[in-house]
Amino acid sequence: MNKNWLITPLVVNLIRIIKKSVNIELGLNRKVRRAYGIDEIALVPGNRTLDYDLTDPSWRIGNLKREVPIIASAMDSVVDVKTAVELSKLGSLGVLNMEGIQTRYEYPEEILSQISSVGKNEFVPLMQKIYSKPVKEDLILKRINEIKEMGGIAALSGTPQAAIKFKETLVHSKIDLFFLQGTVVSTEHLGMEGKESLNIRNLCQSLKVPLIAGNCVTYEVAQLLLRAGVSGLMVGIGPGAACTSRGVLGIGIPQATAIADCSAARDDYLQETGNYIPVIGDGGIVTGGDICKCLACGADAVMIGSPIAKSSTAPGNGYHWGMATPSPILPRGTRIEVGSTGSLERILKGPALLDDGTHNLLGAIRTSMSTLGVKNIKEMQNVEIVIAPSLLTEGKVYQKAQQLGMGK
Amino acid sequence: MNKNWLITPLVVNLIRIIKKSVNIELGLNRKVRRAYGIDEIALVPGNRTLDYDLTDPSWRIGNLKREVPIIASAMDSVVDVKTAVELSKLGSLGVLNMEGIQTRYEYPEEILSQISSVGKNEFVPLMQKIYSKPVKEDLILKRINEIKEMGGIAALSGTPQAAIKFKETLVHSKIDLFFLQGTVVSTEHLGMEGKESLNIRNLCQSLKVPLIAGNCVTYEVAQLLLRAGVSGLMVGIGPGAACTSRGVLGIGIPQATAIADCSAARDDYLQETGNYIPVIGDGGIVTGGDICKCLACGADAVMIGSPIAKSSTAPGNGYHWGMATPSPILPRGTRIEVGSTGSLERILKGPALLDDGTHNLLGAIRTSMSTLGVKNIKEMQNVEIVIAPSLLTEGKVYQKAQQLGMGK
Amino acid sequence: MNKNWLITPLVVNLIRIIKKSVNIELGLNRKVRRAYGIDEIALVPGNRTLDYDLTDPSWRIGNLKREVPIIASAMDSVVDVKTAVELSKLGSLGVLNMEGIQTRYEYPEEILSQISSVGKNEFVPLMQKIYSKPVKEDLILKRINEIKEMGGIAALSGTPQAAIKFKETLVHSKIDLFFLQGTVVSTEHLGMEGKESLNIRNLCQSLKVPLIAGNCVTYEVAQLLLRAGVSGLMVGIGPGAACTSRGVLGIGIPQATAIADCSAARDDYLQETGNYIPVIGDGGIVTGGDICKCLACGADAVMIGSPIAKSSTAPGNGYHWGMATPSPILPRGTRIEVGSTGSLERILKGPALLDDGTHNLLGAIRTSMSTLGVKNIKEMQNVEIVIAPSLLTEGKVYQKAQQLGMGK
Amino acid sequence: MNKNWLITPLVVNLIRIIKKSVNIELGLNRKVRRAYGIDEIALVPGNRTLDYDLTDPSWRIGNLKREVPIIASAMDSVVDVKTAVELSKLGSLGVLNMEGIQTRYEYPEEILSQISSVGKNEFVPLMQKIYSKPVKEDLILKRINEIKEMGGIAALSGTPQAAIKFKETLVHSKIDLFFLQGTVVSTEHLGMEGKESLNIRNLCQSLKVPLIAGNCVTYEVAQLLLRAGVSGLMVGIGPGAACTSRGVLGIGIPQATAIADCSAARDDYLQETGNYIPVIGDGGIVTGGDICKCLACGADAVMIGSPIAKSSTAPGNGYHWGMATPSPILPRGTRIEVGSTGSLERILKGPALLDDGTHNLLGAIRTSMSTLGVKNIKEMQNVEIVIAPSLLTEGKVYQKAQQLGMGK
Repeated sequence: MNKNWLITPLVVNLIRIIKKSVNIELGLNRKVRRAYGIDEIALVPGNRTLDYDLTDPSWRIGNLKREVPIIASAMDSVVDVKTAVELSKLGSLGVLNMEGIQTRYEYPEEILSQISSVGKNEFVPLMQKIYSKPVKEDLILKRINEIKEMGGIAALSGTPQAAIKFKETLVHSKIDLFFLQGTVVSTEHLGMEGKESLNIRNLCQSLKVPLIAGNCVTYEVAQLLLRAGVSGLMVGIGPGAACTSRGVLGIGIPQATAIADCSAARDDYLQETGNYIPVIGDGGIVTGGDICKCLACGADAVMIGSPIAKSSTAPGNGYHWGMATPSPILPRGTRIEVGSTGSLERILKGPALLDDGTHNLLGAIRTSMSTLGVKNIKEMQNVEIVIAPSLLTEGKVYQKAQQLGMGK
Repeated sequence: MNKNWLITPLVVNLIRIIKKSVNIELGLNRKVRRAYGIDEIALVPGNRTLDYDLTDPSWRIGNLKREVPIIASAMDSVVDVKTAVELSKLGSLGVLNMEGIQTRYEYPEEILSQISSVGKNEFVPLMQKIYSKPVKEDLILKRINEIKEMGGIAALSGTPQAAIKFKETLVHSKIDLFFLQGTVVSTEHLGMEGKESLNIRNLCQSLKVPLIAGNCVTYEVAQLLLRAGVSGLMVGIGPGAACTSRGVLGIGIPQATAIADCSAARDDYLQETGNYIPVIGDGGIVTGGDICKCLACGADAVMIGSPIAKSSTAPGNGYHWGMATPSPILPRGTRIEVGSTGSLERILKGPALLDDGTHNLLGAIRTSMSTLGVKNIKEMQNVEIVIAPSLLTEGKVYQKAQQLGMGK
Repeated sequence: MNKNWLITPLVVNLIRIIKKSVNIELGLNRKVRRAYGIDEIALVPGNRTLDYDLTDPSWRIGNLKREVPIIASAMDSVVDVKTAVELSKLGSLGVLNMEGIQTRYEYPEEILSQISSVGKNEFVPLMQKIYSKPVKEDLILKRINEIKEMGGIAALSGTPQAAIKFKETLVHSKIDLFFLQGTVVSTEHLGMEGKESLNIRNLCQSLKVPLIAGNCVTYEVAQLLLRAGVSGLMVGIGPGAACTSRGVLGIGIPQATAIADCSAARDDYLQETGNYIPVIGDGGIVTGGDICKCLACGADAVMIGSPIAKSSTAPGNGYHWGMATPSPILPRGTRIEVGSTGSLERILKGPALLDDGTHNLLGAIRTSMSTLGVKNIKEMQNVEIVIAPSLLTEGKVYQKAQQLGMGK
Repeated sequence: MNKNWLITPLVVNLIRIIKKSVNIELGLNRKVRRAYGIDEIALVPGNRTLDYDLTDPSWRIGNLKREVPIIASAMDSVVDVKTAVELSKLGSLGVLNMEGIQTRYEYPEEILSQISSVGKNEFVPLMQKIYSKPVKEDLILKRINEIKEMGGIAALSGTPQAAIKFKETLVHSKIDLFFLQGTVVSTEHLGMEGKESLNIRNLCQSLKVPLIAGNCVTYEVAQLLLRAGVSGLMVGIGPGAACTSRGVLGIGIPQATAIADCSAARDDYLQETGNYIPVIGDGGIVTGGDICKCLACGADAVMIGSPIAKSSTAPGNGYHWGMATPSPILPRGTRIEVGSTGSLERILKGPALLDDGTHNLLGAIRTSMSTLGVKNIKEMQNVEIVIAPSLLTEGKVYQKAQQLGMGK
């Protein structure tokens, strides 16, 4: 390895930052940048089309090859042992929340049914109570074993705090992948004196299984995480449907720009080191079109919550909630009734019964690839994108109103 | 013909691509372009006005002259034999779907009445069942003959797959125009080994009738189709009301930019070859104002679905649905209740009974031309355009709420 | 007068057109300009404030001085003889529609009450029937005389067609001001052979009373009208609440840019000739804030319809409709129930009982002037403007929903 | 102190104004600037995160240090004696309206209960009647004394008119802070001849307690106020929820740009004089995220009304109204039912029971600081901002409609 690797990236970094279009004047002496969301972009077909059967949307994470570039979120309404196994078998991946109901309660079903039956006003206090019960080490191991025994991939997710606390448990478990996820993850965390801070580089080395980390949104943090040795980057802060980070904290980066920036970090890292690390878009992704746009911005796969929560076997029983909801001091995220619209297989692989882009997500990705004339995810990352806001206009409101039988 | 024609267009092409304003930073290393929709533009009157009677909105396609620059879409809810004939006689044109209900069923009326009476939840499965019945060669010929016998123009539309399959049938039929239409049509299609791919140049030559092809949205593909010998270009991907390409596939180009780009290809082709090939805007066009804007962006005519589906004789019986709806694996497009608001003649030529821009579309085009001071479509393609988004503002919502008796 | 006046303005004109920011790429080979609406701007206070009593919002049209920079539109729901007189006495001005119900019917009250009592579906046909009755010369004279006898200013409005037809009637009447108004007025109209076209310059000379003309939206047409000798410019095409020009015809220029452009023409004309001709913003103006913004863009006064239609004595009896509504072939504009919220005096001069900006419009103008630190309309035309779209955001919808008792 | 201080700032001022991006063409000869609102921005996490406990959101005003960078607005629905005291004790600050119900009525409770029980239509007249009763000097002193006796900070707010009238009363009172607030405050006010105008510099000197002045929105006025000796700048005109300045007067500057511009003035003033004067964002601030964004734009603290009006002890009894509402000639602002969602402590310091960003505002600020990796307000003022409009798109409307059980 080139000993000068520390210098090169710094220079690259500097050049990139200079290249950023920080050219909008918010006020005197304050220049800012415009960031774009996936609602503001659209994909442009090229000169070639392709047979559906020639498209290959598979991707790799660590040593695993997956046929479906979709990961189910580590949320209690989305993934439990059974769905994790089913997702593995469908060529996808499900991540189990290491600090959720599954690892706090021996019998999570009754807890989940309480959540889906409680009234709106009792919801937040109930969540705060449920999540005040401690996470149990033996339940973590139990869930991992259950998944492995049923033939699934054991992927778990934990916050930096949980990673510190349960590191030894994980090291001695049969876990396949570990997702180190916080609202925002950084390589440098300033803690109180005497309090242990997480060293991601050390964690990557000691865990022995691929560590996927995030979420991050900038080139700089993506670079730092890559240098720390992660095997995957989670990208996305604030854009999710069941998350209110932007409203409560003011923090949130439009997803198209976040993915493009972090993908640029991945590409530079590849050029320096020869290692290709996948970028996973996470947050605010609802339809097949959303997934296709994330891939076109540079993602290798996406992590989704609410679309999977709509499956008939999802642990949320037709409800979906964010993981900041049970915070004892500052609950964020709301419970949404998403309903149950079909089996997990139907949602991922069709055939679709709904025409709104929420069934047969893999079919949507492949149809999009076929229409755009791209063979694989790598080519998909290079299709032409236009800024094309589908903003709500007066005319459209009028049309909608007419469709709903309102209006004149 | 200049033997160097292959070089010239490539150079032209290159210059144009360089000229494109691909100047917005989506993210680091990713520059994109802004595209505009017809909701974002408005037309500016010039120094001259004109008597209504001096306006001439006629146009030519192949050897046909049409008084009305409007084509009814090849959708089962819009065009059947009777409406195709009526449209021809009104100076317009209706295209029959070669792979729809009319060519799958001897007696399509009962099928159409099933579609309009089924409940919302049974709709997609019913459509998938109805369209699983095969297209019959003899019904294709029967419909063509019916139209011709009743004095109409026999214009049919088929996908590339259908064009391959029924080429011989069409060659020996009395067809007048053939519309080769797919969500996205390209001159280069990569198929599975051993599977026949469509050669548009060959098809143009063997069909003996004008072939109109699309849809396309870029200068490059428009150029390639023109060189392949098409007699008309369909322009528009993703902006339609009964189409959810953008939501499901992420694909969709705002119509104003798509028409302007493809019109630039038509103008260059005219300069090189002396042949003028019309550009037809297709998708998302609802009112007379939408039509006028498409013409001003460079179109010679438009193809519309939902406005025609509202006529009292439309086969959809007051309903309208997209042609990707019956897809067995990935249904897109929804059924919309559009109602029946008047006769086909009233919708096209007035007099209008409604004041919302959906009656007397030809009158709207001519009134707009008169107000803008332009004599014909060619002049209409050069009127001044401004970017003028009629976005929904707080104030407008407040006004609307007051009109509806809501609000304080 | 400088004999070179024809050269100078042409040069000025050229320079201005070159200066226009036609710098947005709509598509290849098609550059367009961004235009702004009054919903997209806001006014910025300067370094000074002013006592309310020091503000002087008066303005001049022809030889008349008016205390209130507001004209009531020549619409049948807004101005009849009584309101014209009342408006004159309040320091404002009301324009009577020369081709409306007042000049077609001896007793217009019963016709107006039919309009306000008919059902939604019968509205357009009723309007078409009512307006098919011919305009009577003697009723034109009668209405002028009635206004004069009651001490009002006799201001009438007519289309170019009506101006040709009733020119002699007007020349021999006691009219004070004539408004030559069409959707779009130009100095050059191309008519059918043998059909008389209006020569605005001749009309200005023969009428002997000030002629105010419009509507126009561009620097060029404003210049041409000024050179033809008009005494006022009506500015605005397409932005009105009871007008659907943009939806039906695709035509419509955002008002802030239209006023700024036409005001530039007025300023240049003043510099050349020494004559100051007022610019009157017309269309889409609802609140006091809207009026203030039009003045800041360069207008001397505004013409408003719906705010006046809300007065208890308005002829529309709580309803308001556009004047293109009764078109026999292409009705545009809709009937809106605006209600009756107070007396004409309260609407113009307060005291306000409503807090939504529709009462005490003069008070709003003067409070705005006082806050902005400007003494008169001339200074108001130079206050700082910012682009500040009050677009509807997700957060605001959420807030509104909460206020209406919806949402959580 | 440098005697040349008058020259330097003028030069600085000039340079700044030249630097302003006044580069958008509203119309010919009219260049304007784009201003941004807090709905259009979002905050970007940096390379570092921080323990919640390491964050310090305290700030200083005059000689007071406050733990909570939040001030409750001088509105009758928000602050009375009791809440002022409670806010002081919570580390926050409440400002009492010197010209409100508390200083007009000995027993304000019954008046407040009238306001909250009156019907919608009687609201404005009732308000006009209530506020027509004169402000009493002895009640001003009584309220100040009550606050002081109960251990609170006595902060009062008055308009320039009231400041002139009650200056002597204030000078001899136990007041701690005085807020000189008008819709727009300027250092130069042009009054009627013979009428006393306020000299802010003199007032600052004679009052002997810190004077906080505003509201202002521009660099220039902020500079002038700072030079006049104010101890705090209130920033914000027109963006508030219970204020309709923009609709009624056309005046209103988007808050992000206003804060950034005035903060630039503060920074320049600090460099010249060594005095650090806090900037307080005021208007349109509803959630914790809004507060965080104001701080990031350069504010030291914010003033909020409606979030505090929702506390169970607020004088508005679940209602909130603007202070321009009782204007006898031009009432602005409306009464909104905000409800009572929790105690003042819960709203400011949690624990939150609601997940929409309106409970535990301090917790939100500190969580945001921790996530963004900033230790104090000064660092918070320098976090990266992106333009990221969360505009309402078609897709989002569709999602919301589905959540509400509408749509398909």
